[in-house]
Amino acid sequence: MDDKKLSIILFSGEYDKAMAALILANSAREMNITVNIFFAFWGLSLIRDPARMSMDDKSAFEKMFGLVAPKGPEDLPLSKMNFAGLGKVMLKEMMEDHDTPDLTAFLKGAQKKGVNFYACKLSVEVMGYKLEEFLPDVKEQTANEYLADALEADIQLFI
Amino acid sequence: MDDKKLSIILFSGEYDKAMAALILANSAREMNITVNIFFAFWGLSLIRDPARMSMDDKSAFEKMFGLVAPKGPEDLPLSKMNFAGLGKVMLKEMMEDHDTPDLTAFLKGAQKKGVNFYACKLSVEVMGYKLEEFLPDVKEQTANEYLADALEADIQLFI
Amino acid sequence: MDDKKLSIILFSGEYDKAMAALILANSAREMNITVNIFFAFWGLSLIRDPARMSMDDKSAFEKMFGLVAPKGPEDLPLSKMNFAGLGKVMLKEMMEDHDTPDLTAFLKGAQKKGVNFYACKLSVEVMGYKLEEFLPDVKEQTANEYLADALEADIQLFI
Repeated sequence: MDDKKLSIILFSGEYDKAMAALILANSAREMNITVNIFFAFWGLSLIRDPARMSMDDKSAFEKMFGLVAPKGPEDLPLSKMNFAGLGKVMLKEMMEDHDTPDLTAFLKGAQKKGVNFYACKLSVEVMGYKLEEFLPDVKEQTANEYLADALEADIQLFI
Repeated sequence: MDDKKLSIILFSGEYDKAMAALILANSAREMNITVNIFFAFWGLSLIRDPARMSMDDKSAFEKMFGLVAPKGPEDLPLSKMNFAGLGKVMLKEMMEDHDTPDLTAFLKGAQKKGVNFYACKLSVEVMGYKLEEFLPDVKEQTANEYLADALEADIQLFI
Repeated sequence: MDDKKLSIILFSGEYDKAMAALILANSAREMNITVNIFFAFWGLSLIRDPARMSMDDKSAFEKMFGLVAPKGPEDLPLSKMNFAGLGKVMLKEMMEDHDTPDLTAFLKGAQKKGVNFYACKLSVEVMGYKLEEFLPDVKEQTANEYLADALEADIQLFI
């Protein structure tokens, strides 16, 4: 299915939703489907590289934001933080019991399998991030570029 | 429109989002569109059958999870639980005033109209559910199977 | 790309998600893509016109709901209200620093650029809204009409 394409906007910065996006991305790559993920707004948290974060040339707000925003995959909150009193610890424990890899493993899998990572240019600017703070293989894309790309995809999802 | 297909991932376990998914599914069936819903993560709560829940062969975590997770459609929380101080009771009251069926009615309608229900295999495993605990007509699907199916759909939504 | 179409369901009534929907809508119009937004449930808050709200012929519940629901774009909450202790004020401040227009500006841009606004008929009824309370160019659409329309779109998103 080399001519098929999956286009995902990852807007959410939550552990479980990021997991869903990455499981779909990895599964699609196993089927040789081209996968593009466009990280926007909170979704950018997933691709920040803790080793490359910087405080240079940032406004006070941006510095504050950079410090409190999640620092990489395992730092993301659950979308249902208090869902029935269960937290991320419990979900991760259950995943471990079933030998399911964690978010970092799915992220690394996606990189290795050739999922294309795009950071939404406007979100990067508004949030005061710098492209250098993201994982090495992240490219920048405008909303127009995302749309041109999504128009050619067979499946488009907003997560 | 027998040759058209709507593919929904229901990831959310919230009353109002499940309602949106089922209204779209029922409307599509009225137009003879084929409808597949892939229930993943929290979305699985919608298709648990209270009469068929079991505690056998479950780990301590799975038992705890099974007990606190919503037990069927009317037990789901609102996505905006505290939205402007309004709760599910109020929304349901307003729906009743306008003769709008509740979630259970939409779920039964979807079953009767032939909407295809698929439980995400990985989510079922991680959450410690068993296929026998779901509504009778629920089948299991892997992420690969969902994708193969969604590639052929005319509309794909992540809810 | 006059023959291309983007179809968005805006179900969410949150500032950041509405922003994402409108940025995509505006960007698509710049590329001459036809854009239809189907406002459902909480998404209807975005297109309420504060100057045209009415309390006539409403039930007690509907009046209460009308009073507490957000009154136009800038009144919407953030989807991550307490995300890392950051509120909407901070996000808006950061947007201002980067000369990014606010939600109202994006909404006006979408109207000017010819984005088609549709209010979900069932949601309007359940929430006790009246078509006259919305922005002047909002039309009503049933779920069936939305689906017929989305079937012909090249990109469909649920936000």
